[in-house]
Amino acid sequence: MKFDIAILGSGNVAWHLSAALETAGHEITEVYSRNLDHAKRITGRLYATEATDELDFSESKARVFIIAVADQAIADVADGIILPENSILVHTSGSMPLEILEYSSASYTGIFYPLQTFSKNRDLDFADVSILLESEDQETLKILKKLAASLTSPYYTVKSKDRKAVHVAAVFASNFTNHLIGIAEAIMNRQGLDMEMLKPLIIEQISKCLQIGARAAQTGPALREDFPTLEAHHQFLTYNEQLAEIYRLISQDILDAN
Amino acid sequence: MKFDIAILGSGNVAWHLSAALETAGHEITEVYSRNLDHAKRITGRLYATEATDELDFSESKARVFIIAVADQAIADVADGIILPENSILVHTSGSMPLEILEYSSASYTGIFYPLQTFSKNRDLDFADVSILLESEDQETLKILKKLAASLTSPYYTVKSKDRKAVHVAAVFASNFTNHLIGIAEAIMNRQGLDMEMLKPLIIEQISKCLQIGARAAQTGPALREDFPTLEAHHQFLTYNEQLAEIYRLISQDILDAN
Repeated sequence: MKFDIAILGSGNVAWHLSAALETAGHEITEVYSRNLDHAKRITGRLYATEATDELDFSESKARVFIIAVADQAIADVADGIILPENSILVHTSGSMPLEILEYSSASYTGIFYPLQTFSKNRDLDFADVSILLESEDQETLKILKKLAASLTSPYYTVKSKDRKAVHVAAVFASNFTNHLIGIAEAIMNRQGLDMEMLKPLIIEQISKCLQIGARAAQTGPALREDFPTLEAHHQFLTYNEQLAEIYRLISQDILDAN
Repeated sequence: MKFDIAILGSGNVAWHLSAALETAGHEITEVYSRNLDHAKRITGRLYATEATDELDFSESKARVFIIAVADQAIADVADGIILPENSILVHTSGSMPLEILEYSSASYTGIFYPLQTFSKNRDLDFADVSILLESEDQETLKILKKLAASLTSPYYTVKSKDRKAVHVAAVFASNFTNHLIGIAEAIMNRQGLDMEMLKPLIIEQISKCLQIGARAAQTGPALREDFPTLEAHHQFLTYNEQLAEIYRLISQDILDAN
């Protein structure tokens, strides 16, 4: 089942989602951005999509309207947009509740949250993107499921309150793990050592963790209560108090968990 | 070039290393453990290796002796072992200096540190194990390089001081990232949510990080200085003060790094 879809936004999510939806056979009717040039950057990659900087969609043939703007701008778009009858308005944010769309002129509202880290210059297969869906209208939820399925994405129905928990979990599992690898990079660079030597370890650790679970995959000085090594590492890190404190706190949490 | 090698220890490193060295064509002459049954668990998987609980190797035909015991036990093995002439004694620890072997009867000493997370019930290809080497004797270093190369492992010559830094970096990049994914698991479980939905995100984040570096791969509320979301997440985590503090501290470190 093919849908006519308008994309509201011109960031990384809009960029990847519009192309993936078109590839899946849907028609992207319009891409909106406050900055017309930004909208054109995206429509330039699409088959026959209009770029617009106006929120009047009363004449649009789109049925589904996907807001993919920064969290702080969602309410403005939702409140300002003029929609045709029988339209579905969704946003793509991990943190914002469904209710943020309630003052819009949409007949139906929902969430279409791709739980992934998007970068413009990096190809992404939507088969590797979990999509979290929500709607109070069953028919709308069905349509959102069809949209996710058309992208071959695994999808989950998750309420706003739970979606917020998923977002917190994602920050730990993704943003924070990335930053810790960044700390490791900094330690290696400071010592003039080649980061390459750590990569096989990282790959094996994450792979093991995803396969058997973090608890079973845990190793290291904190797990084995190797206090001399913990103390030596803490000493090593005294050149950066905040690093030393991160080391102490996570080690303590590993000790407490076992 | 094939070597006769004795393995001193019966833990995960001894388990994986002995099998890999034998597969690479070397002869594992003996496996030592204080507990003979533990040694036999390993020799049972090997072609024709003697299990022993005695440290008298004066009659051994081995040339290379690899200590793979817990850090705290290395000095005991090194001080107690009786070695044949012209033997090379190495240990496999990330934290212990080369000097810990200086009171041994070995003619030459060195380090052969496989920088990897080992679990007994998980197969491991040594092509995916960085090996950190050290010796003050050039001929010994050459032999250790040949051993690492025979396992098809990438290897690096790293001094004890730098090896300690690598070990600290490895704790951040491997043990701590694993624990943070464990925290994510706990958040998901607490909410009755399926951890599967986070896995594509974790895989893409780590893959992007290893390809373009953590700094360029960083995303999330702290990086974009999204204080309302940081505050909402911190509020969400108040059920566990230590978690909330980990969230605050790593977010602060991301803010400071940018």
